[in-house]
Amino acid sequence: MVIVMKLDATEKDIAKVEEKLAEHGFRAHLIRGVERIVIGAVGEKKREVVIDSLEMLPQVEKVVPIMSPYKLVSHTVKREKTLIDLGDGVVVGGKEIVVMAGPCAVENEENLCEVAEKVATAGAKVLRGGAFKPRTSPYSFQGLEEKGLEMMARARERTGLKIVTEIINAQDVPLVSAYADILQVGARNMQNFTLLKELGKQNRPVLLKRGLSATIEEWLMAAEYILSEGNYNVILCERGIRTFEQYTRNTLDVSAIPLVNIYSHLPVIADPSHSSGERRLVPALSRAAVAAGADGLLVEVHPYPEKALCDGPQSLTPQDFSLLMADLRKVALACGRTLTTADESAEGV
Amino acid sequence: MVIVMKLDATEKDIAKVEEKLAEHGFRAHLIRGVERIVIGAVGEKKREVVIDSLEMLPQVEKVVPIMSPYKLVSHTVKREKTLIDLGDGVVVGGKEIVVMAGPCAVENEENLCEVAEKVATAGAKVLRGGAFKPRTSPYSFQGLEEKGLEMMARARERTGLKIVTEIINAQDVPLVSAYADILQVGARNMQNFTLLKELGKQNRPVLLKRGLSATIEEWLMAAEYILSEGNYNVILCERGIRTFEQYTRNTLDVSAIPLVNIYSHLPVIADPSHSSGERRLVPALSRAAVAAGADGLLVEVHPYPEKALCDGPQSLTPQDFSLLMADLRKVALACGRTLTTADESAEGV
Amino acid sequence: MVIVMKLDATEKDIAKVEEKLAEHGFRAHLIRGVERIVIGAVGEKKREVVIDSLEMLPQVEKVVPIMSPYKLVSHTVKREKTLIDLGDGVVVGGKEIVVMAGPCAVENEENLCEVAEKVATAGAKVLRGGAFKPRTSPYSFQGLEEKGLEMMARARERTGLKIVTEIINAQDVPLVSAYADILQVGARNMQNFTLLKELGKQNRPVLLKRGLSATIEEWLMAAEYILSEGNYNVILCERGIRTFEQYTRNTLDVSAIPLVNIYSHLPVIADPSHSSGERRLVPALSRAAVAAGADGLLVEVHPYPEKALCDGPQSLTPQDFSLLMADLRKVALACGRTLTTADESAEGV
Amino acid sequence: MVIVMKLDATEKDIAKVEEKLAEHGFRAHLIRGVERIVIGAVGEKKREVVIDSLEMLPQVEKVVPIMSPYKLVSHTVKREKTLIDLGDGVVVGGKEIVVMAGPCAVENEENLCEVAEKVATAGAKVLRGGAFKPRTSPYSFQGLEEKGLEMMARARERTGLKIVTEIINAQDVPLVSAYADILQVGARNMQNFTLLKELGKQNRPVLLKRGLSATIEEWLMAAEYILSEGNYNVILCERGIRTFEQYTRNTLDVSAIPLVNIYSHLPVIADPSHSSGERRLVPALSRAAVAAGADGLLVEVHPYPEKALCDGPQSLTPQDFSLLMADLRKVALACGRTLTTADESAEGV
Repeated sequence: MVIVMKLDATEKDIAKVEEKLAEHGFRAHLIRGVERIVIGAVGEKKREVVIDSLEMLPQVEKVVPIMSPYKLVSHTVKREKTLIDLGDGVVVGGKEIVVMAGPCAVENEENLCEVAEKVATAGAKVLRGGAFKPRTSPYSFQGLEEKGLEMMARARERTGLKIVTEIINAQDVPLVSAYADILQVGARNMQNFTLLKELGKQNRPVLLKRGLSATIEEWLMAAEYILSEGNYNVILCERGIRTFEQYTRNTLDVSAIPLVNIYSHLPVIADPSHSSGERRLVPALSRAAVAAGADGLLVEVHPYPEKALCDGPQSLTPQDFSLLMADLRKVALACGRTLTTADESAEGV
Repeated sequence: MVIVMKLDATEKDIAKVEEKLAEHGFRAHLIRGVERIVIGAVGEKKREVVIDSLEMLPQVEKVVPIMSPYKLVSHTVKREKTLIDLGDGVVVGGKEIVVMAGPCAVENEENLCEVAEKVATAGAKVLRGGAFKPRTSPYSFQGLEEKGLEMMARARERTGLKIVTEIINAQDVPLVSAYADILQVGARNMQNFTLLKELGKQNRPVLLKRGLSATIEEWLMAAEYILSEGNYNVILCERGIRTFEQYTRNTLDVSAIPLVNIYSHLPVIADPSHSSGERRLVPALSRAAVAAGADGLLVEVHPYPEKALCDGPQSLTPQDFSLLMADLRKVALACGRTLTTADESAEGV
Repeated sequence: MVIVMKLDATEKDIAKVEEKLAEHGFRAHLIRGVERIVIGAVGEKKREVVIDSLEMLPQVEKVVPIMSPYKLVSHTVKREKTLIDLGDGVVVGGKEIVVMAGPCAVENEENLCEVAEKVATAGAKVLRGGAFKPRTSPYSFQGLEEKGLEMMARARERTGLKIVTEIINAQDVPLVSAYADILQVGARNMQNFTLLKELGKQNRPVLLKRGLSATIEEWLMAAEYILSEGNYNVILCERGIRTFEQYTRNTLDVSAIPLVNIYSHLPVIADPSHSSGERRLVPALSRAAVAAGADGLLVEVHPYPEKALCDGPQSLTPQDFSLLMADLRKVALACGRTLTTADESAEGV
Repeated sequence: MVIVMKLDATEKDIAKVEEKLAEHGFRAHLIRGVERIVIGAVGEKKREVVIDSLEMLPQVEKVVPIMSPYKLVSHTVKREKTLIDLGDGVVVGGKEIVVMAGPCAVENEENLCEVAEKVATAGAKVLRGGAFKPRTSPYSFQGLEEKGLEMMARARERTGLKIVTEIINAQDVPLVSAYADILQVGARNMQNFTLLKELGKQNRPVLLKRGLSATIEEWLMAAEYILSEGNYNVILCERGIRTFEQYTRNTLDVSAIPLVNIYSHLPVIADPSHSSGERRLVPALSRAAVAAGADGLLVEVHPYPEKALCDGPQSLTPQDFSLLMADLRKVALACGRTLTTADESAEGV
């Protein structure tokens, strides 16, 4: 890191900084500028502990970190892309775009199976559906809980789709991982560190949504929590950030996709439904995410959106979804990726 | 609520909306405008269920809610300000400004007691200190946990200060409430609904920090979660929101203070330390918050900020804090509030 | 519009609102809800004048506008997409993706012509280059002014490319339009209403960048300023908005592209260079914008980015640009659009 | 500045950076860290020119500026606070809080004089009122232009108040400065550099509002434009920034006040009316701004807010304003400032 001294720092002030650095095992390199002195600090120790206390020393203007704070998620630690193998040939992070589709919330088995069959036919590989729903209002529908998980499992049996579902409590890890192929951490829980640590202690893949106001660095640090406990199976999911714009619920930060691909080896997918809150935008945002390099999508599909218990306005009908998949396949191919439909897989295309 | 139809809505489209409203127990009032038809919906039912499905109907442009979504926290439900009585004459929400001060994290008993005695002398009524620390990096100091709570309790015994400390897990409610006078919910947990519900099922006062990117409405809805389970002892705490500005860690939204006072009966305090991340700003922001109508403050004070294990740069020294309290007292009096110091209380002034 | 009365509004308060509405030529429709009264206002008059004064009446809680404030730019006024014909078969808003490329600032004729020839060969149809540069610092390079315009004109002669260049002052409209095929309004001038009106009084096409913190509605209103003076030749350009994210200079709001396509008949392009500030992101963002439905792109290309007088880090080399165009062509075709290269046009493909 | 090299930078890459630095008159200091090499660059030259080109060199990760980009506005250049003397004892930046009050727009002479007399009696020293109004919609009231300036001048004659009014075009500087004591640059024009330069070439005091999405650094750089042309009479005005919060029109960034006081010698005032858009918040925000160290306030007052042609909802009545001034006086005194009312000044108190 680099320590910038104030204009009127004395030799004594500088000595104090050097002393503090030595105390933490860092070597100091002084650079006497025309107006100001800056000190380069070199060492192998963790910088987190020392930065705060350096900033408290008299005449220290600011401390500029040089290295990014994440290690295990970083591209510099592992060059090749991480592949998340869900079994039966479904792999997130490879050449194939993996589409996860289904209702926001699991409501009843009939609807769920209907939608599962339709999205499977259209080419989705994973069924999404919430059994535990974090809702802004205590008066809104909160999910079917374990009953919902059971319905998801039965839909998997019928369709062969993998399942992804949200987990909202650290103590539910055993329960949810008994059912789900991917454990989803929602935007509101991106910095629920107890939950992250618990997910790091098991091996089920985790889909980690970006927090509504999380920087990309904080998001990667949240993934670092999971990896640092031993679980390297993390899929990142860009789902829109909060901005001043009012025509959309959130603003899909499409740049986050190439940025994750530059800074990390973890796969990254996008959620065009939650990021916009509007089904009319879902096709364009889905195409954009794939074109930007996303490894997959998380799309809301509901057989009867006007009767959905939550988030109807952002759900596609199965017909819309089927058309979208055909379009996406063309974009995927144009970008050197693949996106197979059920028919094709059957035929081995 | 008001349903706005699209320009080319037909009588049939309108009939569908009326039908859907009737189904949910609402009466429809048609207004035929020059260009467009809007429908006013009147009823006593919960609107959450119906809004989403209305927006899915063909030719519905948008649905505009008329009522705010919170009920129990609302000023329209309870006109008089809620007083949170912590015992021994310490009341949050009354005429007296209640200042809560102490270190970001509890590090060792000696430092804690030193700072506790000093802030008590300067007029603080509550000791703050974190035993469970949610940190962005898994490599940062994570708190002393129960050992820290015990130290807080011993500092209370020695000084008579009440104690406020953060809780980060729903399952820790019994543990933390065995020690703390106020249970603090951090910004990152503002929408940890499991935690909120658990806190609603007991009666210990809760200090609910505003999320980094939470709107005031979402913040009040988070409080509604606690009240809806039966606990009305909630103190709101504005602690800065995330914006594009880079000279401060967060932007203290000082308008949130009068807004909470307009829309809710709950007391509201401000955290000038976390909102700025810089001790040089703490005095000005503290004065501003009191002048804007805050019922109290949450201020970081550390005896040796340059040695603090977390957030040193935003901590005041006990001497700085003492000077700040003298200034704040003048501002409080100028605004028709009081802020008594230890000496004064002893003298019964 | 809909006027929401406060809970304790009396009949007298309501009468005042009705009177005020009548005064402005609106008819009032009362809806007596369970808790509250709302009033629908119907009329053909401009609502801008009446809204503010209604909100001042006693017991009016808020006024909710029903109609969007823009008229001439709206899709409801003109259904078919506006085509901006630049001559010689270059049309913005049609099936062909129009790519505008070149240096941030015009620096010298040699570099400009070199880059112009290369981008023309790669398939660009318009040459971009700034002669008037609005810079954050008064100490930064401010542009070559008219000399720069002359160089642009000579580059046009040599390559057949159209030219787009920024205009920053209302009084420069005659000067800049004597040279440019498209007059660009930068993000900082999006609400320079004097400039917008002046541009509305002539017929040269205008490329209107979205302001750094402008909502889509404000951006469309800025376009409305130009159309309302008589010039319908407006191209909108999404160039990133300001958010809390720090890994990019701005956040490309890719949703703005389909939203403009829904709400307006004007063509919309994207600027992947300014929105990210990083050349490593330009290819992914360019593909994303085209996949989202953009009618074109504005890309920075510099023959020697490391010697550029401004914005080098976001400039592509001509070689990078050429590769990007080949990729974009595939994405365009996958989305039902075209993107011809120089060779192809020559061959009439 | 400090140049951070990429992990795999070679000696040749480093040599290139050193060469580029030498070329621009900087000396290079190498620091070989455990993982990475960083280079400190020391020199007296303007860094703006070199930063961009350094970032383009192969294997340069990033360039970290050490110095802030502003010079003349900086506290390090001029330690003592700048006083803006408006004549007749009205000085902005001294001990006295200077309140500027009046209608958003000048509408007619009668109203203007009525409000001018009332605010003067209540203690305002400057009359505000817009003759040129930048409006989001081309269909909104745009101001009375020179006729409005004349009315302002006559109100000054009658009351002795100084006048502040907005200027929106560089070519209007002679016209507006013929009437106004302070020339106001609105938020939308904060980066209208042509206007700023023109204002720098004359000596009339300038009130520079912060842009809606301007960082404090950009705001100070905008002031630098004026100072760099020779006019040091600049008053900064915090007027709220754009955030995701929807209960207020903008978010008053109260931290900007102490930050300007730390980084610059220029006086800073606050606009509680535009920042909130709601008159119910004006008293609390006014008190907060003064308590945070503002040198003055810009407050909207209209004799008949419900009839105002613009921004009625945020205007105080003269009676409200008079009460506010009494409150503010107490807060000012509590903070070691003064705020005299007309009566007091008359009596020489």
